[in-house]
Amino acid sequence: MNQPDNDHPNAEAAIERLAHVLGADCVSRGAAIGERYFTNYGEAPGERPLALVRPRTVDEVSRALATCDALHVSVVVQGGMTGLAGGASPRASDVVLSLERLVGIEEIDRDAATVTVWAGTTLQAVQEAVEEAGFTLGIDLGARGSCQIGGNVATNAGGNRVIRYGTTREQVLGLEAVLADGTVLSSLNKMLKNNAGYDLRQLFVGSEGTLGVVTRVVLKMHPRLSSPATAFCLTSNFSQTLALLHAARAALPELSSFEVMWPRFCAYVAAQTPDLRVPFQHAPGLRVIIECAGRDAEETTGRFETVLADWLERGLIDDAALAQSEADTRAFWTLREGLAIDALPDLINFDVSLPHGRMEAFVAQCEAALDARWPGAHVFFFGHLGDGNLHLCVSAHYALGESAEDVEALVYQFVGEAGGSISAEHGIGLYKRAWLHFSRSPEEISAMRRLKQAFDPRGILNPGKVI
Amino acid sequence: MNQPDNDHPNAEAAIERLAHVLGADCVSRGAAIGERYFTNYGEAPGERPLALVRPRTVDEVSRALATCDALHVSVVVQGGMTGLAGGASPRASDVVLSLERLVGIEEIDRDAATVTVWAGTTLQAVQEAVEEAGFTLGIDLGARGSCQIGGNVATNAGGNRVIRYGTTREQVLGLEAVLADGTVLSSLNKMLKNNAGYDLRQLFVGSEGTLGVVTRVVLKMHPRLSSPATAFCLTSNFSQTLALLHAARAALPELSSFEVMWPRFCAYVAAQTPDLRVPFQHAPGLRVIIECAGRDAEETTGRFETVLADWLERGLIDDAALAQSEADTRAFWTLREGLAIDALPDLINFDVSLPHGRMEAFVAQCEAALDARWPGAHVFFFGHLGDGNLHLCVSAHYALGESAEDVEALVYQFVGEAGGSISAEHGIGLYKRAWLHFSRSPEEISAMRRLKQAFDPRGILNPGKVI
Repeated sequence: MNQPDNDHPNAEAAIERLAHVLGADCVSRGAAIGERYFTNYGEAPGERPLALVRPRTVDEVSRALATCDALHVSVVVQGGMTGLAGGASPRASDVVLSLERLVGIEEIDRDAATVTVWAGTTLQAVQEAVEEAGFTLGIDLGARGSCQIGGNVATNAGGNRVIRYGTTREQVLGLEAVLADGTVLSSLNKMLKNNAGYDLRQLFVGSEGTLGVVTRVVLKMHPRLSSPATAFCLTSNFSQTLALLHAARAALPELSSFEVMWPRFCAYVAAQTPDLRVPFQHAPGLRVIIECAGRDAEETTGRFETVLADWLERGLIDDAALAQSEADTRAFWTLREGLAIDALPDLINFDVSLPHGRMEAFVAQCEAALDARWPGAHVFFFGHLGDGNLHLCVSAHYALGESAEDVEALVYQFVGEAGGSISAEHGIGLYKRAWLHFSRSPEEISAMRRLKQAFDPRGILNPGKVI
Repeated sequence: MNQPDNDHPNAEAAIERLAHVLGADCVSRGAAIGERYFTNYGEAPGERPLALVRPRTVDEVSRALATCDALHVSVVVQGGMTGLAGGASPRASDVVLSLERLVGIEEIDRDAATVTVWAGTTLQAVQEAVEEAGFTLGIDLGARGSCQIGGNVATNAGGNRVIRYGTTREQVLGLEAVLADGTVLSSLNKMLKNNAGYDLRQLFVGSEGTLGVVTRVVLKMHPRLSSPATAFCLTSNFSQTLALLHAARAALPELSSFEVMWPRFCAYVAAQTPDLRVPFQHAPGLRVIIECAGRDAEETTGRFETVLADWLERGLIDDAALAQSEADTRAFWTLREGLAIDALPDLINFDVSLPHGRMEAFVAQCEAALDARWPGAHVFFFGHLGDGNLHLCVSAHYALGESAEDVEALVYQFVGEAGGSISAEHGIGLYKRAWLHFSRSPEEISAMRRLKQAFDPRGILNPGKVI
């Protein structure tokens, strides 16, 4: 092993001790650490960490953490590196703890409708195992092939199924985590109801590796759904769209998506994607994709058709098209995914949530303020309206001395004033830490510190992240 | 005010200080404290507390707690006193903090589908307000007219709607709590998705007043359901019943109850309730009540009939009767409520949960062991099988030196061995504290103590409860 290019007083001692405790084949350093351990999805490589530790068992995770804790060496736990908030980025003085060797489905319990899985397993592998057993997992998101279930839990991942099943937090029945001092907390509960003392699971869901390292989880499995029926709807304005959301919640127990795209978004993506054929291409107004998925695709489609006809009659929608083929469905979602936007220079992607009643004003305020300060900027709104989750994309030409931070400051201030969250589903990580105060009070942040102090008194777990 | 019959060194100082800080009309002592403040539902009065404090605002709750914290005087927060674990019982040295003046619906937000409510409001008042707004609340339980929403949240109440909506934890979007030192943590979030830092709500849900005092909550509202269709089904054995649960989950998206009664339970209740007319009265086997509630009662009933016919054909049920009138529905539920059992002497009601796959063996083991040790004992099983929640009632004739504790020790040991929870929905409170170790490991209990130490370092909140 090479000398570390690191001046942490315990660095050398820590690496030696880790190799001694776990075996040399669990510990890498220097050039032996692949770039993927310090490169976030879609970003340039960051700092090469002090060491990479890849334990094979929970006991090894425990010993690795206890060793680092004793030597005051900081640890960044990593999943698939697909997070969008820099929560898994190491610094040169950090030990990276990768859970990629803790993989596999431990058990599928059809009676309890649960799957028990190791944290390093990819989301897609869990989904496939659950589907093979005749069920559906409540979690799905674009990075499914790379992201790991431990990371999904640590970040309380949102994604495509929240409107139906809730966030990852609602999917976790049991959890095993290792604390900074090496204590293994095994709460692998399978029951929907368990009020025997404090619910410790909750500490580790969404705390982004700052309170403990998730090693195993028990997740709910839901009844299998047939392929969805997908409608593309046109509305004239936001208040009509909100009324449509009410109506959809009330009339469609099988509702599985309610996605809204504002006019500028649709016009830009359509213009940049010449092959794309979606209905009402030149009409003004908002577009809404509504999906329903039930036990029987034909029955679902039939009911959905009746409901759409009723909405048209009642003026809840101006027009609607129900997908007649997979190609139709793909076209609707191609518009929604809006890949053309990703190519814009200096793009900032916001992931905020707001009370529904504050959204219209927020969109108008933000748009006006951004247009005024950066004339000609691209400002696009779309989102999982069913979840209260709004995405905003901004690409502006900055004047000298300006940067993305100025846009963020402007947007997050409006979010704060609207009682919204500066991070709906991506977490705080490194990149949003400076803005946390817009969504959380000093008392809340101080309560977070109490938790951090209680579970990681030496501050070795993912320092500099979240709080 | 009278002298307190209490030897806590700070007792007199605390009462004087509280009266000074809050005004004398907020503080009662001695005979002015009504019995209901030291009497749990269905129990004899306990010890009269040192004082009763009834704040009118969150600020007064904060000042009351800060005062008690400074003087090391312990505080028991109370809701409707309907808990079944003694979690709100005061001792003579405790100050009782009643939230009965913090009442009312603060806001109904139809767009966000949320209701914001003060902690002292009864569950029924919240339900009524939500229904008036055209929605359904996700929480319902027998004590609805007396229990308070703050207590429901503090105990993570279960009840009748868990299979459909999850427990109270899943209903809480936002929460305001006051810490032992008087810090007000206001996290009145309305959004389904909020990953901006640690989810502090979770600390106060289900921790039974030991980590903070819940003063306000934001709850989800669900689309209104029509009146349910109710079926009474007969199965031959537990494995058939479990297969039926699978089938019901898969075929009935509108499933709202799945309640199972074991043969001894049905035979005893039927024999003690001569007026009761339920189907298959003399057949052996288990009884299952299945309810569905959807948007349209007729449509729901029609679909349910088709499904029941299919189950009969496939042998998933031996027989079934769909309620044809409200009287039928009432009869099914009268059997299930089993009031006759409450009259048995020395009755012990267990509220446990178990992984479904372990239930059959658990029931057999428990029954055999109880029969063997207390011949002639009444031992009845029934439960919310859809939630994994089993109730067990035992009435035994004890030998000299024996007591209910011997029955508890026997039952809870089996629960522990089956990986179950000694408290599915009632909490730990005072009465189950001694048995917590059957469901939680020493590491988990020690992690709970870390939380307690972090949020209530002087241990003034509900001491002697939970941990």
